Amino acid sequence: MEWVDGHIVTIDQTTLPEITPLRLSTVDDVVDAIRRLAVRGAPLIGVTGALGVALSARLSGESGYDPERVRADAERIASARPTAVNLRWAVNQVLPHVDAGQDAVLAAALELLEADVRTNEALARRGAALLRELVGERPMSLHTHCHTGALACVAWGTALGIVRALHEDGLVRQVLADETRPLLQGARITATELAGMGVDHRVVVDGAGPGLIARGLVDVVVVGADRVAANGDVANKVGTYPLALAAARAGVPFVVAAPESTVDPATPDGAAIEIEERDDAEVLRFAGRVTTPEGSRAINPAFDVTPADLVTAVVTEKRVVRPALGERMAGE
Amino acid sequence: MEWVDGHIVTIDQTTLPEITPLRLSTVDDVVDAIRRLAVRGAPLIGVTGALGVALSARLSGESGYDPERVRADAERIASARPTAVNLRWAVNQVLPHVDAGQDAVLAAALELLEADVRTNEALARRGAALLRELVGERPMSLHTHCHTGALACVAWGTALGIVRALHEDGLVRQVLADETRPLLQGARITATELAGMGVDHRVVVDGAGPGLIARGLVDVVVVGADRVAANGDVANKVGTYPLALAAARAGVPFVVAAPESTVDPATPDGAAIEIEERDDAEVLRFAGRVTTPEGSRAINPAFDVTPADLVTAVVTEKRVVRPALGERMAGE
Repeated sequence: MEWVDGHIVTIDQTTLPEITPLRLSTVDDVVDAIRRLAVRGAPLIGVTGALGVALSARLSGESGYDPERVRADAERIASARPTAVNLRWAVNQVLPHVDAGQDAVLAAALELLEADVRTNEALARRGAALLRELVGERPMSLHTHCHTGALACVAWGTALGIVRALHEDGLVRQVLADETRPLLQGARITATELAGMGVDHRVVVDGAGPGLIARGLVDVVVVGADRVAANGDVANKVGTYPLALAAARAGVPFVVAAPESTVDPATPDGAAIEIEERDDAEVLRFAGRVTTPEGSRAINPAFDVTPADLVTAVVTEKRVVRPALGERMAGE
Repeated sequence: MEWVDGHIVTIDQTTLPEITPLRLSTVDDVVDAIRRLAVRGAPLIGVTGALGVALSARLSGESGYDPERVRADAERIASARPTAVNLRWAVNQVLPHVDAGQDAVLAAALELLEADVRTNEALARRGAALLRELVGERPMSLHTHCHTGALACVAWGTALGIVRALHEDGLVRQVLADETRPLLQGARITATELAGMGVDHRVVVDGAGPGLIARGLVDVVVVGADRVAANGDVANKVGTYPLALAAARAGVPFVVAAPESTVDPATPDGAAIEIEERDDAEVLRFAGRVTTPEGSRAINPAFDVTPADLVTAVVTEKRVVRPALGERMAGE
């Protein structure tokens, strides 16, 4: 993710493992890329949103800078996806600079991008220390869902950043990666990133994780988050909740890794989180191939909510909170 | 599934919803069809196994009938898949007739096929009555996994047979059908069968079911089984266990529909059930397309085990047993 000559340059995550460069040159490009998950991963869509506001400011500057138009664009960007709170958070970080003009907006967005790298590394280090404490000082078998690596962030990643930090210390025995239907972020992106790190990994279908946890193949489940409510309920990619249920039953720690910007004190609990419902076609087809009979329909929630009592710990760049023990993320 | 001129004639379930006739003319054909899931569904592979022994007897008859060779073939067929107990059970039903010659073996196998139709209908009726009792006399929303319909049996089906029986009485509001990776039996076969019945249905990815159950969209979960242990633990298609976990937490009944031949008194509990591990390639590809990077591997268990305490009821053609209340399927 870079700002190059007044454009946002990144890669299109829908075609991975094939690398397709993606250049975002208008606010419509930004909204579209976020909506169709060409840019995805809660931290990354936050940074993209902030750079999108900078893009709007630059374009507005071409024809007489109009702060109102930039603010309207910012609102449109912030609403592109409803569940991940980082997007609106990041947009809100640059909004106070809009009146100061395009250079100020761009500087704020780039500062956010830089900060994200530091945040990620701190989160990864803190998370690795937590897992060593929870599992013990031995090579461990981790189970993860969706993709939370460097490509979902600016660098390092959240849950996969922890894997990277543990792997540096020789403490990763194996990673089980859910393929993560419907868009297969686990199979396409997580597996690619793990292969690149040289981490021994196995891809599993989403239905298999809970049974493998029950059979004792997993020491710890570690996932990212799209929003963490004040009480510790966690919204994350659909298919996370079954892992939490299985982990709780098996006595396996269930750890959520997310930057502080994912914690939303204004969301009291999971019931208050809007779950994005996506297009049927993602479920009914794959890569243009129809898998269902003509006329079948789908329900396609992008996320599910894991209740706080199943969450052993939430680790951020600043702290470890234990919702299963009744600790709150925010508020009394 | 028919016996036509000394051959077994059925359809290849791997190509559904496209209908491809399949003719099994040798014992190798039978073993191969069962192994690659061209013939699948616990009741149907039982009947196919029995007809396979009849096929061996007929072929043996061409060159001087040899009961030992037929018994060796029978053992090969019975071992084609390790988890579904119906296969060995059905083969064992025809084995006592081997010494009496090929006509006796065929008669026993065809009797089994006929009996399967009656068993299925009785199971469907009993299961429908059970669901009316558990959910109430109102149109209900059911969640199911994999495929348990007419194409998995000789007629009617098990869990989907119950849906059929309830639908006749106007008591099905909607069916949520898991797509059931890796082989998509839910998307390809269950959805096709539900569409054919005119049942309102939605296909969901396997990771979504537990979250939808938690959100109150499901009145009852109903699935089939490949083996039910004496204590009520249930082996079924991988992805069943997470539904049971979610149903238990939400207070939603979790019902297993299976013929008595699926109950194995010789299996004390789930820990004694061998879980078939299938080829990595089923996971690493989706609908024929590779989804993972070169060199990635998979873990691909065909089944998982749902512990008895999560099983509200097991309904067979003869009885309803409530493992969650401590009732046993067999033994003291």
